[in-house]
Amino acid sequence: MEKYYVSYQNIHRTVRKLAGMIRDSGFTPDLIVAIGTGGFIPARILKTYLNLPILTVGIAYYDIHNRPAATPQMIQWIDEVREKLTGKKVLLVDEVDDSRTTLEYCLRELLKYNPEEVAVAVIHNKEKEKRGTFPTEVKRYFPGEEVKDRWIAYPWDAIDIDQHDRIIRERGGK
Amino acid sequence: MEKYYVSYQNIHRTVRKLAGMIRDSGFTPDLIVAIGTGGFIPARILKTYLNLPILTVGIAYYDIHNRPAATPQMIQWIDEVREKLTGKKVLLVDEVDDSRTTLEYCLRELLKYNPEEVAVAVIHNKEKEKRGTFPTEVKRYFPGEEVKDRWIAYPWDAIDIDQHDRIIRERGGK
Repeated sequence: MEKYYVSYQNIHRTVRKLAGMIRDSGFTPDLIVAIGTGGFIPARILKTYLNLPILTVGIAYYDIHNRPAATPQMIQWIDEVREKLTGKKVLLVDEVDDSRTTLEYCLRELLKYNPEEVAVAVIHNKEKEKRGTFPTEVKRYFPGEEVKDRWIAYPWDAIDIDQHDRIIRERGGK
Repeated sequence: MEKYYVSYQNIHRTVRKLAGMIRDSGFTPDLIVAIGTGGFIPARILKTYLNLPILTVGIAYYDIHNRPAATPQMIQWIDEVREKLTGKKVLLVDEVDDSRTTLEYCLRELLKYNPEEVAVAVIHNKEKEKRGTFPTEVKRYFPGEEVKDRWIAYPWDAIDIDQHDRIIRERGGK
């Protein structure tokens, strides 16, 4: 299956659209929690529109010896962060909703600390059967763009960004 | 003074150059510490080339009531993070070395936890008199690009990314 190449500009426009969707929904988050490292860039762009503090969490599927871990490991997910969630309206941000397992895991962790509300924003939602599910407490979900289930080539993963953009132009994208 | 508009592509190329400078120096960092929120995007791109875990720290110059704070406040800067620094080679990443005060503050905090080495990488170094200084323990400094002391318009701060890019093209940049 052909990879879906996405430009920085396309990402930026989608995040702008997301900010509009969030505003129009009436949801007024107090803070962003970015899932690292995929959520760092969309969260930072979203901050331009929503002007919110960003906390980050890292998820590792490998332990410190680089061996696969039995369960996902939360990195940098600690008391000080947790305390900031209680009673707050939290917007969890990641680049993609793929199998939904990472999002479900993070949402369940977030919900332990009694936020007032947790919502989810992603740049891309892959149209596929999901292995994870959103907990029933999650009432708002903001997917920036619905995409087919294929490999998404994000600009920040490009070794040669000019080559990356050339592929996009050749396919008529921008 | 005219603002200096920088494209995502320019940032990406500069980070690639930085990765080459770091490799050529013989410095082999164990992890990246990204200063939030400016360091999030350069750190994430750098990860593409160096394949390192990213920890983040936030610096706030305002307290939780949005009043100016007397000293910078470390956000999400906690025991679990500190423990990961001891004996490690750490690369501290931010978008810009402006007055150098934030970098100095972060470096002094990092050095408390006895890393083996701490180095600094920034996309831009502003050529100006610096109010902060690098602690003597810091032996390596990687500035991606030297720029005059003027306002840098980063792409992630653009409200309209197409307008941002248009200004760059009109000025003959890319």
